[in-house]
Amino acid sequence: MATAGLWRLRRPLAAAFSSAAAAGSGRPEQLTIRRQERGVRNIILNNPRKRNALSLSMLQSLREDLLHDAKSKELRVIVISAEGPVFCSGHDLKELSSEDDVKHHSQVFEMCAEVMTLIQKLPVPVIAKVNGLATAAGCQLVASCDIAVASEKSQFATPGVNIGLFCSTPAVALGRSLPRKVALEMLFTGEPLSAHEALMHGLVSKVVPEDKLEEETMKISQKICASSKSVLALGKATFYRQMTQDLDTAYKMTTQVMVDNLTLRDGQEGIEAFIQKRKPVWSHSREEKK
Amino acid sequence: MATAGLWRLRRPLAAAFSSAAAAGSGRPEQLTIRRQERGVRNIILNNPRKRNALSLSMLQSLREDLLHDAKSKELRVIVISAEGPVFCSGHDLKELSSEDDVKHHSQVFEMCAEVMTLIQKLPVPVIAKVNGLATAAGCQLVASCDIAVASEKSQFATPGVNIGLFCSTPAVALGRSLPRKVALEMLFTGEPLSAHEALMHGLVSKVVPEDKLEEETMKISQKICASSKSVLALGKATFYRQMTQDLDTAYKMTTQVMVDNLTLRDGQEGIEAFIQKRKPVWSHSREEKK
Amino acid sequence: MATAGLWRLRRPLAAAFSSAAAAGSGRPEQLTIRRQERGVRNIILNNPRKRNALSLSMLQSLREDLLHDAKSKELRVIVISAEGPVFCSGHDLKELSSEDDVKHHSQVFEMCAEVMTLIQKLPVPVIAKVNGLATAAGCQLVASCDIAVASEKSQFATPGVNIGLFCSTPAVALGRSLPRKVALEMLFTGEPLSAHEALMHGLVSKVVPEDKLEEETMKISQKICASSKSVLALGKATFYRQMTQDLDTAYKMTTQVMVDNLTLRDGQEGIEAFIQKRKPVWSHSREEKK
Repeated sequence: MATAGLWRLRRPLAAAFSSAAAAGSGRPEQLTIRRQERGVRNIILNNPRKRNALSLSMLQSLREDLLHDAKSKELRVIVISAEGPVFCSGHDLKELSSEDDVKHHSQVFEMCAEVMTLIQKLPVPVIAKVNGLATAAGCQLVASCDIAVASEKSQFATPGVNIGLFCSTPAVALGRSLPRKVALEMLFTGEPLSAHEALMHGLVSKVVPEDKLEEETMKISQKICASSKSVLALGKATFYRQMTQDLDTAYKMTTQVMVDNLTLRDGQEGIEAFIQKRKPVWSHSREEKK
Repeated sequence: MATAGLWRLRRPLAAAFSSAAAAGSGRPEQLTIRRQERGVRNIILNNPRKRNALSLSMLQSLREDLLHDAKSKELRVIVISAEGPVFCSGHDLKELSSEDDVKHHSQVFEMCAEVMTLIQKLPVPVIAKVNGLATAAGCQLVASCDIAVASEKSQFATPGVNIGLFCSTPAVALGRSLPRKVALEMLFTGEPLSAHEALMHGLVSKVVPEDKLEEETMKISQKICASSKSVLALGKATFYRQMTQDLDTAYKMTTQVMVDNLTLRDGQEGIEAFIQKRKPVWSHSREEKK
Repeated sequence: MATAGLWRLRRPLAAAFSSAAAAGSGRPEQLTIRRQERGVRNIILNNPRKRNALSLSMLQSLREDLLHDAKSKELRVIVISAEGPVFCSGHDLKELSSEDDVKHHSQVFEMCAEVMTLIQKLPVPVIAKVNGLATAAGCQLVASCDIAVASEKSQFATPGVNIGLFCSTPAVALGRSLPRKVALEMLFTGEPLSAHEALMHGLVSKVVPEDKLEEETMKISQKICASSKSVLALGKATFYRQMTQDLDTAYKMTTQVMVDNLTLRDGQEGIEAFIQKRKPVWSHSREEKK
């Protein structure tokens, strides 16, 4: 393609956007890397040369890594991180140019929305571990995770207006994570939030020095691994469900969930272990206790 | 009961949970203390030995103290505080063990939800005055109050996952008071928020040094007592009602409320007093001015 | 009117409220001033002697300035500021006294709600530039803008309870901009938020020293002027629309908006310019590219 060569010379301004490598220009074998150990699945966005752009293939790869054997008792928490100084730069602009047709554009945005909502539907907590710049759909990815830990140098922006493409899908996630004025200033100006601003306003839940990022994320992951998968899965699904309900409906539904939680094998095990002053032994099973 | 003796030896980890004393093991005569003076009703959770657990009897006692003569002109604001270093540790786990049946579990959670929603339905502002640890349904109690003032040493957590019981009912109140990521990190890990984090994220509205807690809470209470009860009651009910509506419906409804507010005896008195440069004399009556 | 003279002597407490000057007592010719230059329309509340009270005529003047030629390509962003130490003190209490009838009161509140919701319906971003005290409907005006920049000395309050008129319409905007507990403490006590508290809690999106207020607001305005009007208009309308929808509906709607955005003349121009490493030339047109 005529534009491919141009991508090798990039203006500083271009840092916020990316294009996945064209075939033949050194595309990495794996757009994402999936590693799993002791319950923690690390999914690493692995196209730093292209600023980890969410090309259609990157989205498909991420989707696959998220869904892979998700119900297995071996999987207890997912951590999404990235190679290189840019966490994720959003859509691959080359896929959105007029050279591609409307049908292809739709496919990209639909896959993106599917991945973003999938994160909330998974039975395990999903943590964004951010060490760098997250822009546009990359910022949406952070906002869509259940938990987000960021290093102090991280930044968050939705600069679509600069290229005439308002970040309307990222705005769905931002508008549900940030105060309205902060979200709109980001969306209207494209200017970034610092990590500390992101924490103050709720886009991320923790900010640490860069050299503590791994340790802090691991601490949260291990805390999660110490709990019952079935209990966390019930709790996560219930959380998102009740958030869309009015207060009385939410309490009626969750009251029943609490009663159901107690009938789970791990619900009874937890309370018995506490009373017997011993560590609980989780089954992670969704079965009720007989 | 077989487990009662075990409660006398507690692990540090157990600090987050409690069990109300079994009959005969020194149960205090009053689970809550109600004192009222010059319009301010103090309700004090009074079972510090059991970390002010929200046992069914504690919930019933709290409910009664909240409802008692609530429409009286003598009652203008309610302050909920607690004896001892733990503000409230949530449900009484003994009441949730397998020794009790599902019907009893339901009763506990239903009464809890009733008390939490009752707070918003009362015609007077309800202030949580927190000086210590508030966990699980105790954290939900703070989140459910209209206003919350906390001392700097206070902490807030939802550690149900540790005992296999996800804090799904507390999540209803947390999800409506905190940014989503902060709420989910609390719910998934059980780790506490400090008082200053709670303020930054909106779970409490004010944090002061411990030795200023009484003074600050009293200042807010007296501010409230200086206003008309009927006007505050109208405003409180309207606030919660409009929050569930779309913007246009909310403005249509509140526009009518403003007009109605002006026809109240105290609505006209307030404006007349201001124009006449004198202190208003409130009737606290819900009647319209003739 | 008998009360007019009294307004000349004001108690400090009265600073929060205002009354528009009666006819003959020196009413300024223009309640608002409208100036437009290089895409930026400044609307200046210009009744400092009356603390820029939102009298019916002030609201009508503001409405006219907001709507004037709003679709013109020359208009790209609106900045609302004020003359004098009080940004805006809310309704004109004289218009709400018993001397006016219910029909007139309704007219005032309806016009106020119309102006507040109009701000969100305009096709350009609206910035509140606050340098001083914003109270009651004045605080609502700040909360209703898309973006708000405040000087460090600014304060925000809803003191209606002091005069027996609960700020129920301001509460609509506050409840959608602030954590619930912070909003309720403001509404129940009438006590002000400082500029930094307003930033922490999301009521404003930026706080700067007073001598940087003009510069910072201009920086944001110029950023906005550098983008395509049609793209910003699409994005703004979409943002408010999706915020009232559930997540799946929001993504379905915005996914289509992204596709539509790409078919806009300026959507394609932005991406082409980026790829061609040149500055985009916006048409600001809502037409699709052929």
